Amino acid sequence: MREMFQQELHEVQDRLVEIADNVITIIDNATQGFCGTDVAKADQALASADAISDKALALDELVIRVLARQAPVARDLRILVSALRMSNSLERMASLAGHIAAIARYRFPASAVPEALEDTFDEMSRLVVRLARKTAKVLKNTDVDLARKIQAEDERVDELHRHVFDVVLSDEWSENAMFTVDVTLASRYLERFADHVVEISSKVSYLTTGDWSETEI
Amino acid sequence: MREMFQQELHEVQDRLVEIADNVITIIDNATQGFCGTDVAKADQALASADAISDKALALDELVIRVLARQAPVARDLRILVSALRMSNSLERMASLAGHIAAIARYRFPASAVPEALEDTFDEMSRLVVRLARKTAKVLKNTDVDLARKIQAEDERVDELHRHVFDVVLSDEWSENAMFTVDVTLASRYLERFADHVVEISSKVSYLTTGDWSETEI
Repeated sequence: MREMFQQELHEVQDRLVEIADNVITIIDNATQGFCGTDVAKADQALASADAISDKALALDELVIRVLARQAPVARDLRILVSALRMSNSLERMASLAGHIAAIARYRFPASAVPEALEDTFDEMSRLVVRLARKTAKVLKNTDVDLARKIQAEDERVDELHRHVFDVVLSDEWSENAMFTVDVTLASRYLERFADHVVEISSKVSYLTTGDWSETEI
Repeated sequence: MREMFQQELHEVQDRLVEIADNVITIIDNATQGFCGTDVAKADQALASADAISDKALALDELVIRVLARQAPVARDLRILVSALRMSNSLERMASLAGHIAAIARYRFPASAVPEALEDTFDEMSRLVVRLARKTAKVLKNTDVDLARKIQAEDERVDELHRHVFDVVLSDEWSENAMFTVDVTLASRYLERFADHVVEISSKVSYLTTGDWSETEI
């Protein structure tokens, strides 16, 4: 029974890693489409983003089946509840990446990013793609040190998000409303994407250290 | 055992309704603060929004305890997994309402809504508050007809959300970037708020009709 349960937990973990790997490709393509004018990358991101919902739902069904068959308690139960949360986060990340790709799509052949914010969005994009890669690694190896580093890197994303608003609300900003809308939303999407990365990594920390506080799931 | 489980399910439901009632007050205050210049309402919304996280986490802990003690299967198990999702949605709704209140707070004593969008945001706000009230009612009475109506009303929210962009991207829009940023984000927050309402109500539909499809949780 115990061995079967461990096998099923591995299956859950493998599926989380698989979805995370898909999300990496999607956010990588989406941000490349958004920061440059590579519309083919944006299209690839859009085409793949929808499929993540189905994969996340299939994973949830698997978790529910394991809960029903094994009736786990204590830490095992929490691992499965966390898997449901992680699957939800990964689904939202794919959806946010899809929104970023959609902005690039709408603005093509023009770029959605005005010159004044090119460096900011380049850095923000590189950061979130790197964070997504680290999330997959954390899920694969349940690496607590890496989970902590992720939380530190998210702070830089928040800084860049605030910087976008500083630029847009400064006297020097002379772009039209379309640019203002695009960069406002894109920055928000990237910030939320990084928030989900942190949520996933913090759950992995708890699972590995076994240090569950009463107020954390 | 069965009777105890039913009692525990009622406790879960009562807590969901209680959190939903709190969220109604928060979104009502937040939108009143945002659409008018009643900064006291915005402050009330901000003060209450944070507390929802703790209530949602406490509810999740209760659900995990019930799962551990009762090891439910089939529909009972799905009800509890849905409760976790609903609690997550309610938490996000409170957070989104808090963001709307924060915009009103920043712009006080000025209004965050320019004249050209006053009617749109008034309607959108009334709609989402009404939707939040209906969600609480659906959770209380597991009323499937009401759940269906909610899904229809969400379409109007999406329409108004698109209208905000039409106005902002039209040639007539002459407001500064601050207004553009504020209305873009506020409209996005209200749209997401309504999305969560729909997610909650669709779960209640499934629970009541027992009509679970393999692809819905």
